[in-house]
Formats: sequence, structure tokens, C-alpha cells
Amino acid sequence: MAHGAIKKVVLAYSGGLDTSVILRWLQEEYGCEVVTFTADIGQGEELEPARAKAQAAGVKEIYIDDLCEEFVSDFVFPMFRANALYEGEYLLGTSIARPLIAKRLIEIAAETGADAIAHGATGKGNDQVRFELTAYALNPDIKIIAPWREWDLLSRDKLMAYAERHGIAVEMKRDGTKSPYSMDANLLHISYEGYELEDPWVEPSPEMWRWTVAPEQAPDHPTTIEIGFEHGDPVAIDGRRLSPAKLLAELNRIGGANGIGRTDIVENRYVGMKSRGCYETPGGTILLKAHRAIESLTLDREAAHLKDELMPRYASLVYNGYWFSPERQMLQAAIDETQKVVNGEVRLKLYKGNVIVVGRKSESNSLFDAAIATFEEDAGAYNQGDATGFIRLNALRLRVAARKRG
Amino acid sequence: MAHGAIKKVVLAYSGGLDTSVILRWLQEEYGCEVVTFTADIGQGEELEPARAKAQAAGVKEIYIDDLCEEFVSDFVFPMFRANALYEGEYLLGTSIARPLIAKRLIEIAAETGADAIAHGATGKGNDQVRFELTAYALNPDIKIIAPWREWDLLSRDKLMAYAERHGIAVEMKRDGTKSPYSMDANLLHISYEGYELEDPWVEPSPEMWRWTVAPEQAPDHPTTIEIGFEHGDPVAIDGRRLSPAKLLAELNRIGGANGIGRTDIVENRYVGMKSRGCYETPGGTILLKAHRAIESLTLDREAAHLKDELMPRYASLVYNGYWFSPERQMLQAAIDETQKVVNGEVRLKLYKGNVIVVGRKSESNSLFDAAIATFEEDAGAYNQGDATGFIRLNALRLRVAARKRG
Amino acid sequence: MAHGAIKKVVLAYSGGLDTSVILRWLQEEYGCEVVTFTADIGQGEELEPARAKAQAAGVKEIYIDDLCEEFVSDFVFPMFRANALYEGEYLLGTSIARPLIAKRLIEIAAETGADAIAHGATGKGNDQVRFELTAYALNPDIKIIAPWREWDLLSRDKLMAYAERHGIAVEMKRDGTKSPYSMDANLLHISYEGYELEDPWVEPSPEMWRWTVAPEQAPDHPTTIEIGFEHGDPVAIDGRRLSPAKLLAELNRIGGANGIGRTDIVENRYVGMKSRGCYETPGGTILLKAHRAIESLTLDREAAHLKDELMPRYASLVYNGYWFSPERQMLQAAIDETQKVVNGEVRLKLYKGNVIVVGRKSESNSLFDAAIATFEEDAGAYNQGDATGFIRLNALRLRVAARKRG
Amino acid sequence: MAHGAIKKVVLAYSGGLDTSVILRWLQEEYGCEVVTFTADIGQGEELEPARAKAQAAGVKEIYIDDLCEEFVSDFVFPMFRANALYEGEYLLGTSIARPLIAKRLIEIAAETGADAIAHGATGKGNDQVRFELTAYALNPDIKIIAPWREWDLLSRDKLMAYAERHGIAVEMKRDGTKSPYSMDANLLHISYEGYELEDPWVEPSPEMWRWTVAPEQAPDHPTTIEIGFEHGDPVAIDGRRLSPAKLLAELNRIGGANGIGRTDIVENRYVGMKSRGCYETPGGTILLKAHRAIESLTLDREAAHLKDELMPRYASLVYNGYWFSPERQMLQAAIDETQKVVNGEVRLKLYKGNVIVVGRKSESNSLFDAAIATFEEDAGAYNQGDATGFIRLNALRLRVAARKRG
Repeated sequence: MAHGAIKKVVLAYSGGLDTSVILRWLQEEYGCEVVTFTADIGQGEELEPARAKAQAAGVKEIYIDDLCEEFVSDFVFPMFRANALYEGEYLLGTSIARPLIAKRLIEIAAETGADAIAHGATGKGNDQVRFELTAYALNPDIKIIAPWREWDLLSRDKLMAYAERHGIAVEMKRDGTKSPYSMDANLLHISYEGYELEDPWVEPSPEMWRWTVAPEQAPDHPTTIEIGFEHGDPVAIDGRRLSPAKLLAELNRIGGANGIGRTDIVENRYVGMKSRGCYETPGGTILLKAHRAIESLTLDREAAHLKDELMPRYASLVYNGYWFSPERQMLQAAIDETQKVVNGEVRLKLYKGNVIVVGRKSESNSLFDAAIATFEEDAGAYNQGDATGFIRLNALRLRVAARKRG
Repeated sequence: MAHGAIKKVVLAYSGGLDTSVILRWLQEEYGCEVVTFTADIGQGEELEPARAKAQAAGVKEIYIDDLCEEFVSDFVFPMFRANALYEGEYLLGTSIARPLIAKRLIEIAAETGADAIAHGATGKGNDQVRFELTAYALNPDIKIIAPWREWDLLSRDKLMAYAERHGIAVEMKRDGTKSPYSMDANLLHISYEGYELEDPWVEPSPEMWRWTVAPEQAPDHPTTIEIGFEHGDPVAIDGRRLSPAKLLAELNRIGGANGIGRTDIVENRYVGMKSRGCYETPGGTILLKAHRAIESLTLDREAAHLKDELMPRYASLVYNGYWFSPERQMLQAAIDETQKVVNGEVRLKLYKGNVIVVGRKSESNSLFDAAIATFEEDAGAYNQGDATGFIRLNALRLRVAARKRG
Repeated sequence: MAHGAIKKVVLAYSGGLDTSVILRWLQEEYGCEVVTFTADIGQGEELEPARAKAQAAGVKEIYIDDLCEEFVSDFVFPMFRANALYEGEYLLGTSIARPLIAKRLIEIAAETGADAIAHGATGKGNDQVRFELTAYALNPDIKIIAPWREWDLLSRDKLMAYAERHGIAVEMKRDGTKSPYSMDANLLHISYEGYELEDPWVEPSPEMWRWTVAPEQAPDHPTTIEIGFEHGDPVAIDGRRLSPAKLLAELNRIGGANGIGRTDIVENRYVGMKSRGCYETPGGTILLKAHRAIESLTLDREAAHLKDELMPRYASLVYNGYWFSPERQMLQAAIDETQKVVNGEVRLKLYKGNVIVVGRKSESNSLFDAAIATFEEDAGAYNQGDATGFIRLNALRLRVAARKRG
Repeated sequence: MAHGAIKKVVLAYSGGLDTSVILRWLQEEYGCEVVTFTADIGQGEELEPARAKAQAAGVKEIYIDDLCEEFVSDFVFPMFRANALYEGEYLLGTSIARPLIAKRLIEIAAETGADAIAHGATGKGNDQVRFELTAYALNPDIKIIAPWREWDLLSRDKLMAYAERHGIAVEMKRDGTKSPYSMDANLLHISYEGYELEDPWVEPSPEMWRWTVAPEQAPDHPTTIEIGFEHGDPVAIDGRRLSPAKLLAELNRIGGANGIGRTDIVENRYVGMKSRGCYETPGGTILLKAHRAIESLTLDREAAHLKDELMPRYASLVYNGYWFSPERQMLQAAIDETQKVVNGEVRLKLYKGNVIVVGRKSESNSLFDAAIATFEEDAGAYNQGDATGFIRLNALRLRVAARKRG
């Protein structure tokens, strides 16, 4: 790509070391104007420092947006309607945020007349794919700069040297050290990769985790909550209605306090390698369990089974970055069609890492019919004799085959 | 069905009240000889009393078989290779035992010259289907008697009255009471249905659970174990090789002591109704988590994803009673093909209901390549520039469509 | 079922021998009032004789409805959006008509205050299932009478004797004979079962077929037509807009004249047996080919592939009678989501049984980009170098595994 | 890629213009030794001229192998067991040949001590992917040279100029012209792309087709044949046993003479674009129809349906080049498990483009039970009353839901 061809680029800018170096590098290498975009998606960091740093770097157009509610209502909740779980374990916390950020980058490019976007994801990971597939799907002519695939600052030392050379501040954590992990956070989760995790036989050190207490440190008595659902989305905790972002934040708080939501897995990246990741998803872990519980009461069996069969594919699409794709939209249409009846309440006991469903009810949509299900006499609600024909016809093909085998 | 047509029937006989009444009822109603079959599949009850009772009832051919090893090696382990989980929650403990019992009933019918089999499952549940589909698949001409679908002893009171009238002993539990739940147990699990569980909003009383302590009562310090796998099956705990049944029993013991494996769900029965079930599956819960962990390290991504997509269907087949069917065998062939490389060890921390994977390794089959996955410089193991083409071609169709939308 | 319990029953009445016998039998056996319902769904028979016969039998409420347009627009076309083909061959002509008839039976029951419906489908076939699943789904408390499962008139001779005994006219075909086949017809197809077809090694006699000429008898010159599609549905032939029913009728005419749409298969019935069926579906055969062709130009690859994977399940649902089910509606939502862009024209050559696509275009939605696809130089529309990275990352997991195998 | 790094390369060499230019270009650009490999996979061309040309170009190691039998028995037939059809139309004739050629390239590289392979596929197509995925899967360290992605000879004119400059003969077809289409042929099919086909609204000119007569030119009387199957593979025509390659060749001859097997489609390439392709697959078209027919008689319903659902994915894997992948092997294991019982004969009528099944039988494995299927009285083979319970339990969930909706 001829570097001179770019006039203005919108950079996904966190204010941290990496994207600060990228900001400077773009100005130098591409000689183009840089617009910065910093999103609040609940990562729990101050955003004003990013503004100050961007100003100091000579950026004229600085975007800082609070996307928390859009993130949860338009991305997280639709995904939870699908009970999405990548490879049986991962709640897709990072995956689901990338399309939103990339969508906003494209919008800002249109607003500012920029012809390119840039991001700080490496050439080894999934995030570059998620950013860029979204960008291309929304603006097929956008130019994309991924410095990590272009430059030679491929180690931390080289990056630090570049920063020092250009007077870019390297901030330390409050305790004066820098986390050795590669991390990503938003309202749904915080993730950890790298460092000691690169050996899948090694347990992460207890200090790594940030959002949850260890189950051992959680309270000795359970916390009980009730979550209310409407059309498959959670709308209330203990009868109190909350906006999507506030509800998820509250579940994070309660879950984190009870040691809920830690995951430690080896996963398969879209770019072809296996990698180790640790995740804290306290609210999401509670939500998945609760959503399945309210579905168990209100969803038709065959619709539920079909959802379960389609789920791994849906999860892969989100993981791989195909949120804005016809196939994801097609699956979403199927899923959303089923959620009209997913209304009711779930009662949960949270205790030292456990999420235990202890009750579920739905005034309007429960398909649980105690009169039929009872182990006592049912006064004719169900005719046991029907089972004979049911079994015999379901067995017919097996019997014919058995006769043929002789 | 003309009652007189049966000459000899093999009854699945537990020695409990229900099947003791059935034994007598068969003798009376069908006027035929009854052969009893009592299986030890790890339900944890003495079987000799069943022999004595059968003898007392005049049964001449009494079969009492220890099927524990066959149960685990030929049924439980193949199912766990599939990571089977019905409706996201249920480990299929009852489902997987029925085909084995029915297969043995058919074998005994052949050995004894019986023309029929009988079982004590009701006309409302899944077990009748599982027994009978298996029986018909293995002997298409077998006659099947399901007293619960025929007789009028449809309440507990009527059953007790019949027992009393015919001098059939009604045994109580050791504490002099009778469990109010409908239960089923084998080496994989124990299940509870009925009574207070018929209201899905009500939490089961703490006394119901029998195999596991409550998480609150579990030890305050974690237990760490290592499970060794060969070809997808567990073969050792902490380096000690165990037979399939012994290994599962040991996992049950450890899991139960740590409050692991309780499940409380509303599930969809094959006969069309929703029902509430509670399950304790301590060893199975550990095993599923461990098996997924060793697969995460050794299984190819696409094979793993395909397994995940096929799993719900496999689980439904087992749940519905189609173990001996061409479609289950077809799926099993696909699953087993993938398990050749599933070898290695998984380290787990068990703590108050939590099963936490803290390490996995595979000398011979790990596909985790630290040289490629590292966040540090990788000395050319991976060319980051490859990602550009990868993304651009994956995006091509999305870009063409976006251009057309204009 | 206690016969006396029925007060009024709505009978699906064709006016033919079988349903005329049923009408009388219902009056006799159930002693209840019978309402007749005769639907015109394009079967190509006069309906007024049915009215006369019903009147003669003392029926007071007689419904004769033209459902052709509803049949095609609300049932046939949605199904064709899915490219539904049961077991790779069968276009579901009978299956798709049953839910409509049953829905109308239930509506008429509500209008007339009837508590039951009745139909003339046998206890061996799929149609009973399709009628009754629909009926129960729309009115869970409806009573259903299926005389073929109740009475003892199980052979043609007994039926004829009953007819004669009760003065029911047995009509012959125009040529004075009665077809030896069991047939069913509507706007989508005509089907044949029974008689010589009961031996799957025997070719049906040429006289059996009624809607199509044999390919050998078709014109020696091809007929070329253009079909216009909007949102996945055909709307015009050769530029002439037609209503759904008229369009399908016209395709039947053209296809039949060119020997198109004969199928001869062994299929698997839902009730568990294999059966032989022959079908003539001239218009539907053309439509499926044309719909796939317009989709090939306008549909995204991954959406198209997902449709193909879901299609067999959709087809089974229709075949088995689950039109009015949550799972069919769920799949339909996914399918319909994809059809917004399925707009354009397809040109076809019809010749002696062949349907040959010779052109497809879409002004508004074609995703075929000649600039990219060309074998000539493309002026940078596609960067061939991108393929290197695409292949290398797709190969990565295979290479890592190969290295491990050594 | 540093050109100097290659010592010896194995080139997939046809002897035609493109690969002759590549041969010379490799010698010049890479300064390395070239080994040529020319495969006979039934493309119907003389191979000795390729030897002479390679010798003239100074090649010392020349491989010319007849792979016809291996191609059909180990690649084509396993694929036909799956009834594989890409996007509902394409029989995968080119796709299935590429893994075999690439496998042989890798074997020859090992035999000759070459460190690289080269092929003549362009950077826009699927074939590069198929060659290279196979190569990497079998030898993860192989180097791959794809001249079309490297050089600047991107138009036919430039290629011709290079050929002339280096004295490379440009051969014409027998009639002195050169086909304007891009073609590929093997025992399964011949394909056409490019030229007039780049407009999907234009019908291909009649002269394009080479293997089949037009239906209009085919004989006026049908040809009837019988194909015998064992374990899902065809083994005999009209009772005469033939080797796999000979059998397929014979079906090609008969099909071609009867105007069978032309396809004209727009397809989705793996690299992201839509392209137009025309194919002649006479034998394969007959074989697919015949295989489905023998399966219809011998295969269990649920196994058949599962095969149909998995088929599109299997076809995509083959199309995309993943023959030597764990996921294809996994699916193949499932498919092959079902084919043990697929034995018998199919009778077909071939007439002017039509393949009409007129009979199917299987002495040993037919699951068609005339006694059950008959429309006449069946003497108790099937109890019609069983259908009542079957329908009622299948309807139960729909009824409960309908009651809840009210």
C-alpha cells in the first residue's frame, strides 16, 4: 500500500502506550491527519486522559463517545438471546464489542471526510479480523491501516524505545508496575492473554484476576436474586427495572462479589492457531444461566433444540467477526422469532462461584402444565395409552430393518 | 393385546414395590411364567433381596447381573466422547442406562425362550420409549408389556392396596420413611422427579439430595486432581489407572464430597410435555469439563466445531431412546474418528461445587504451538502480513454486496 | 372414544366414494350433524357435484371455498423460498396443501359451533398426521374423527358393499373405468400411489400420468420463457404479471406440454414405512430451478449455504405436517430474511423433460461482478497476492497438526 | 519470498502453453531444477507430448502417472457416497481432482528431494486453494510457488509474447483454433469458464460443449441401463462388473450420447467472488441419480435425512479444498458407516438429457415392505390404530402452547 495515498485516518484510540505510538507513527509514516476515537463501552477507565493526550499530539478532531447502552442493547442482548458460547466455554466478551467500535469508526470517517481507519490489533489475533470485516461490510472502499502488520516494532522493547524517542509517556498502573498480560475490557468482560498463560499447563497467578473475587474469598452465605425477562431480554433485577447497561453492570457487581464468571480455556482463533485465554464475565455468566432457565419454561421443545443446534455456528460467526453479515442476520431473525414468548422471572442463588437456578415462572407463557406432568392421577389430562402407538410407529423403521438383518 | 397370548415374559425387576406388584400382576393377568432380571449398574442397592423376593413369588429363572463395567465402557464413555448435554444442562444419566437394560432383557428372552418383556416405566415418561425402542430394534417380534399403560393402579394408594391385598412387602427407607420423590440411580447419576418439584418455582428441599453435599457443606479447601485420557476416554486419576466403572465411581466420590454435580431443570420429554427434574452427576460433571479441556488442546478447530453442532442432535437421540439406531451409530462413527488424538492430562481444582480447569497437556497430540501463539517476537513462526490477504478475501463478498447496496 | 360425545362434525368432503361413505358413516355411527367442506385448491375437478351430493345426504351446512390464491401465496411460495425438496426428490405437493385444508376445517368448526372434524385419510399415511397436527395446533380442544382408523371397511370391496347398501353412487371416470391408483391433486401437483407401484422394480404404465406428456411426446423444439422474481417469489412470466395461482397454473400448462416434472421415488413416511410415490409437478419443477438460478446471482454465499443446510429439515417439517409449528416459523423467518434481495429475471429453455437455465440477471441485486471475475486483466479490481495470505492462514491449523504427526 | 531459496521444484505440468511458460519461468526466475509431473486422470489428452516438451526444456526427472483408478476409487466414489452437490447443482468435477494431484506432487517432492512445488492455477480461483491446502496438510514445510500470483504475465497477450520470446510452441486445437474458454477435464467432468460466459445472461454457444450431444441431437429412443451397487459404490453396468475408472468412463460414454449432464450455473468461489461455470458430467449425473435411488430403498430414514443435512457442508469442504482435513474425514466416517447396507440394482432410462429411475431392488437390504405399505388389507402387518397415539403425543406440545395462547 503506498503510504502517501491516505489523507485522513480515524484511529481507534485508547490513550494507552500502543495506540499512542500508533498515533505518532501514522503522523510520521503516512504524513496524514489523524482523527482519534475513544469509546466508553464500560471498560472502567477514565477517558479524559485520552483527550488530553490526543490534544497534546496535535489531533484536531477528537471523538469520545459513551456507547454503553448501545453496546448492551444492540449487541450483547441479541447475542444472549442465542445463548452463544464459543467452543462450549467462551462468552464472546471481546468479540461482540469489535463490530460496534468498527461501525463507529466508519461513521466518524464519513463525518470527518476521512478515507481510512486504523486500529491497534496485532496480525496474530482475531480482533484485526473483526474490525476489518465490519469496516469493509459497512464501507467497501475504506482503506485500513493495521500498523502491527506493517511496522517493525514487533517487541515490547522496540515499542518502548520508540515511545521514549518520541516523548510518549508510558503510564504505569497505580502500584507502579505494568500488567504482564494482554488485556481487554468492556461491560461484558475482561480478558487476559500472554505471559505465563502461554503454557497451558500453568495455572494463572491469583493476582491476575481483577473483576471477581476468588470463590474462596466470596461470602459464606448465598445471595439470591430474581431476574425478569421480556422477549428474551433481561429487564429487571429483584423487580427493579434497569436499562440494559445498568442491568449488566449490576449483575457484574453481584457476580464479581460472589466469585462468579472466571473462565480459563484454550481456544481456536480464526487465524488458525490455538491460544490460551482467561476471562471474567460475572454478569454474562449469570445471564446465560438465567436465560436458559426462562427458555426452559417458555420455549417450545423443537424451537429450543433448533436453537441449540444453530448456536455453535452463531457463536463462531460472532467470534470470527461476521456480525454485519447476511448469515448472522439470518440466524438472528430465526432466534428473535422464538423470543416473543420468552417472558417471566428466574430466581437464582449465587454462592462462591456457583450460579444455581432455584425457580422459574411465567404467568403469560409457561408451557409447564402440572396437570399433565404430575406423577399423581391426572384426571385424563394425558392418556397413557397414546404412548403405545407413539412408540410403535417410531419403532417401525427399526423393526423393519431388524427383520431384514434377520 | 390379547392377554392370553404370552407364554413367558422377562421382567426388569428391581425388587421394589412397583416391580413386585407388576410381577404378581403379570402372573395373574397374563397367567404366564415370569423371568426376573435385576441389573447392577451401580445404583448402590443390595441386589440379593431382589433374588429372595423373586424366589418367594415363585420365579424359577432369576437373572442378577453386574453390568457396571459394560455400562461405563460401552455406553457412558462413548456418550462422553460426544460431550453430550441435553438442552444445555442434562448429562443423560437415566437415558444412557435404559438401552443396556433393554438389550439384556432381549438377550435373556432369547436364552429362556420368552416371547415377551415387561418393564415398570409409566406411560408418561421417556423410559418406556427408551426400553421399547431398544427392544424392537434388537428383536422386532418381541412382545412388550407395559403394565402402567394397561392397568388401573394409577395412583400410589391403589398400588399400595394391591400390594397389601397380595401380601407384597412395602419396604421403607432406613429411617422408616419413604422418599416422596420418583428416583432413579446408576453409576452416572441419581435423579429426582415429582412431589414438590412439580412446581418449577419451588426450590427442592435440602434433604432431597443424596449423593452430594451442598456446596456450603463442602470442604473449605480445594481438592486438585489430574485425569489422564486416551482416545477420548478417561483412563487414570492422579496417574493411577482404573477400570471404567472404578474410575467413574472414584470421580463420583470426589465430586460428591466437593458439592459438585447438582442440576435442577425443566426439560422437554419426548412424549411432548415439560417436566421438572433434579439430578446429581458428580463424576460426570467433572468428566465433561475435563474432556472438553483435553479436546481444546488436541482437537482440530473444525472437527471440534462440527462436534459441537452435532452434539445437540446426538444428545436428543440418546434422550429419546435411539441408542441402537443407524443415525446414532452414524454420529458415533464421526465422533470416534476424531478421538484418536484426544490423549493427555487435565488438572482440575474442585471446590464447593466448582470444577475449575487449571492445566492441560498432551505430549503426543497438543496442537498448541507456543512459538506461534506468543505475544513476543516469534522469529518468523507466523507471518503477520498473511492476515491482510486472509481478511481481504473473507471480506470480498461483503464488500461486493455493500457496493451493490450503494 | 365414546361415539356419542360428538355433536357436530366438519368433514373434509370431496364428493368421491370414500368421503361419501364417511359422511353416511358419521351420521350413522356418531349420530351427529355433519357439516361438509369442499376446497378448490386447483385439483381440476368440478365442485358443484359435491354440493348436490351433500344436500342429498341431508347436510345443512355446506362449505365450498376457492382457496387457490391463498394456497399458492401463503403456502406454496413461502415453501419455494426454501427450495424445499424432501429426500432430494419430492416437491411436497400433497404435504403443503394439508395444513391449509385443516386450518379451514378448524375455522368452519368455530363458525358452525362444531366440536369435531373428520377426514378421509388412512391410518397408514402422512396425511392423517398433517391434518391432525394442524388441527390440534390451531384448536387444542378439537375432537378428531379418522374413520379409517376406526371402522372395519378396510378394503375396497367392503367399502363398495357399504356404498351399495346405503345407496351411495360410485362414479366412474369418463372412460367408464376407475383409476387403480390412489391419487391426490392440487395446483402444485398430482400424485399416484398403490397398485403396480407397490413393486419398486416395476415401471409405472404410461397411461398413469395425467398432467404431463411423456418427454418422447413433447414438442421437438424448445420453449423459452422468462420468469421475474420479487423478494424470492415469482411474479411474472415473459414480462406479464400474474397472480400467484394464475402464474403457477400457467407454469403447469407450459411444463406439462414439454414433458416436465415427472418423479418416481421410494420415500420414507413419517409413520415409519417406505412407500413408492409418483408425482407430476410441472410448474413446481420449473419454479425450483428458476428460484435457485435467481438466488445464485443475488444471494450471499454464506446465506445460500446456510439455507441449503437447513433445507432438508424444513422439508421434513412440511412433509411431516408441522407447518403450524414454532420450528417451521423460526426457519421461515430465517429464510424470508434472505429473500429481500432475491429480485430479477431468469430465462429458461424447456425441452422434452429438461429445464435448462440459459440466463439470469438482476438490475438491482446482482452480486456477480464481471470486473472481479474476469479471466482477463482486471485493472486492480482483485489483488491476486491476497490469496497467499488467505491460503496460508486457512492452512495453518492443518500444518500445525501435520508437524505434530511428524 | 526470496527466489534464491528454492533448490528443486516439482511442477504440475500439462504440456500446454501456460505450464510450459511456467516451466521456463521457474528455471529463469528461481534458477532451480524443475521436476515435471503429468497426471492422467482421464482428461482425454495424449501425455507423451508432455514428456517430449519437458525433455526439450532440459527437465531431467519427468513423472507421467496414470492415476485414473485411484482417482475414481479413492476420491470420486467416496464423494458420491455423500451425494455431494455444491450449491444444489455442481458435481465437483474439478474440486475432487486437485487433492489427488497435490498429494502426488508432495510424494514426488519427497522422492526427488525437492523442497518446493509449483502449479499453474491463478490467484483468483479455487484451484490454488485446493492444491495448496492439500500440500500444506501433507507436508507442512513444503514451499509453494504460484507463478500467477507472482509474475506480471497477467494477460494472454503477455503470456504469448513470453512464449514467443523463449521459443515455446503454442499449440492449436485440431481445427487450427484455440478454445476461447478456460477449461479443465478429468474422468468426472469437463468445465468451461470465461469468454462469453462472463455475462450470466448470455447462453453459451452450442459449439462450446465437447463431451455431450445436445438433447436435441440425442437419439429418439431411450437407452435403458442397470447399475449394480455394493456398499454404496457402483460395481456393474447391466450385470457386467467394471473397475471404478472403466465404469465411470462407460457411464460418460452412454450419458454423453444421450445428452445428459450439462450444467450452467453461477457459483460462489471460496475466494469470495461469484463466477459463471458450465460443466459436462454425464456419468456423474447418472451416478448421483442412481445412488440416491438405491439409497431410497436400503437406507434408514433418519440416516438418510442426516446425510442430506450434512451433505452441503461436505460439498463445501470438497469445493474449498479441505479433502485432507479432520472435518472431511469425520464426515466421511459417518457417511461410510451408512453405506454398508447400500447394495442392489437400479434401472434407469436415459433419454435426451433425462435420467429417469424406473426401478430399484435389493435382495439383501431392501427396507421396502410391501406387506406394510400396501393400500389393500395388510393382514395385521400394520395397526392403523397406532397412528392415533403417535399423532396425539407429537401434537401434545403444540396443544399445550395453543392453550396458553388462549
